[in-house]
Amino acid sequence: MCTNVQYKCCHRFIMNPQHLYFDPIRREQVVGYRQEKTMNMNDMQSCIDACNKCYQTCLQTAMNHCLDTGGRHVEPAHFRLMMNCAQICQTSVDLQLSGSAFCAKYCALCAEICEACADSCAELDQMGDCEKVCRDCANSCRAMANQ
Amino acid sequence: MCTNVQYKCCHRFIMNPQHLYFDPIRREQVVGYRQEKTMNMNDMQSCIDACNKCYQTCLQTAMNHCLDTGGRHVEPAHFRLMMNCAQICQTSVDLQLSGSAFCAKYCALCAEICEACADSCAELDQMGDCEKVCRDCANSCRAMANQ
Amino acid sequence: MCTNVQYKCCHRFIMNPQHLYFDPIRREQVVGYRQEKTMNMNDMQSCIDACNKCYQTCLQTAMNHCLDTGGRHVEPAHFRLMMNCAQICQTSVDLQLSGSAFCAKYCALCAEICEACADSCAELDQMGDCEKVCRDCANSCRAMANQ
Amino acid sequence: MCTNVQYKCCHRFIMNPQHLYFDPIRREQVVGYRQEKTMNMNDMQSCIDACNKCYQTCLQTAMNHCLDTGGRHVEPAHFRLMMNCAQICQTSVDLQLSGSAFCAKYCALCAEICEACADSCAELDQMGDCEKVCRDCANSCRAMANQ
Repeated sequence: MCTNVQYKCCHRFIMNPQHLYFDPIRREQVVGYRQEKTMNMNDMQSCIDACNKCYQTCLQTAMNHCLDTGGRHVEPAHFRLMMNCAQICQTSVDLQLSGSAFCAKYCALCAEICEACADSCAELDQMGDCEKVCRDCANSCRAMANQ
Repeated sequence: MCTNVQYKCCHRFIMNPQHLYFDPIRREQVVGYRQEKTMNMNDMQSCIDACNKCYQTCLQTAMNHCLDTGGRHVEPAHFRLMMNCAQICQTSVDLQLSGSAFCAKYCALCAEICEACADSCAELDQMGDCEKVCRDCANSCRAMANQ
Repeated sequence: MCTNVQYKCCHRFIMNPQHLYFDPIRREQVVGYRQEKTMNMNDMQSCIDACNKCYQTCLQTAMNHCLDTGGRHVEPAHFRLMMNCAQICQTSVDLQLSGSAFCAKYCALCAEICEACADSCAELDQMGDCEKVCRDCANSCRAMANQ
Repeated sequence: MCTNVQYKCCHRFIMNPQHLYFDPIRREQVVGYRQEKTMNMNDMQSCIDACNKCYQTCLQTAMNHCLDTGGRHVEPAHFRLMMNCAQICQTSVDLQLSGSAFCAKYCALCAEICEACADSCAELDQMGDCEKVCRDCANSCRAMANQ
């Protein structure tokens, strides 16, 4: 992953380009932002939405379907992955909403965890919806990481 | 607030009513649930959506518009309320998604904080959208608390 | 609960009393703070520590001992309570650390949930440590709520 | 970073080695764990404590000292970094407490963000304590990532 990805990412939420802000790469106050490095706001919103859906789906499924079904659905490695995936996606939403300079790197890691969670869901019954949401989120996070 | 509200609330996510589960009020294993006490799933989903929108809007507005604008927008009491409102609404989403027995009581407190945040937003420029989202969430949480 | 409790609570983190800040009760800008209403910083730190320990213990116990043991330890109502207690205590830490005006009210609710979680732990094997941590946190939160 | 780090990490919380569990690397059910790959529990606890202290210090400092001081302390890039660092460290605590297979990779990213936050603190007055806590956490996270 290009070490510059965070540069593009951190500019996306600069809502008042006429304001001075601190550039974390150049380490100085700058005015406005370089347009060519701004990421597409639609892509950002898509990734926020995908992470939010994954956080909600994993948490709700784990705490209801998995606990109520029992058996392999509460096997430690699977259940942990569901809860960890929910937590990591929720933090990903937070970072993106707050305009963090680290959201691209974070999304790269988030994609790995979502993919692992999707694989774990694929081995169990009635987890097809959760698997699909995790795969979609992994794809969206990879796109964000590569911007 | 009726002390029974949590009883209704905790049943909403019982997806497999044929399963035994522990009733936190009667403190015994029961089968299924009493239909008349189940809350409307549409109301629950509305409240989850309202809390999720309030969490995202308060966080994004505080970390972008408020920080970029400065002045009264970063005055401690206002900024704290924005961040606390975001956090409390996010935890409210978690509790509702996980089928907590305490979501009605939690939503009653959440409504108070959203109302206070809306009042604080009303005193500042360009915070009308955030104010509206907070008022809507307060209304939705009050409805949940009174179910 | 006295409606004034939040007033005392919100003053505890005012580190620069010479600054103007917004008083959430009087709803106006004020200078400094009234000394007699400030809560004891040691009590605050005790409650932060108790909530932090409860958050960590419930989460670690649920995700390791309970999942590894299975059976009644992953029964939905018990497991949900463990995870909800962890989440609510963690948010309580956040509110207290950020100097929220709502931490007294929040702690009152947190105490109820910790007590319920302690009761649930008391019915299971090898949950004595978690039960004690929850009871200690409930006591600390009640003290904070009544300040 | 060795791709095997997560393997060592995910074994640390296996409290009942006689139980079957799913190995996320070998992708099969295994019994117990290979002792030589288990990480030192003292190192794990150190990293949990360092992340927890960093989460609390960044959050408390941002929401009190920085907001009360104003000026450069609420400059968007600095304030965002403080809040993002707090959030990422808190999620790191969660992953470690829950025995996640991804905690080594997560800690590698956490170390980067803590280091950036320490650098940002170093440019401001009266942020020496926060800077030190961030550097200590970065060191602890790097040790965890390299286990």
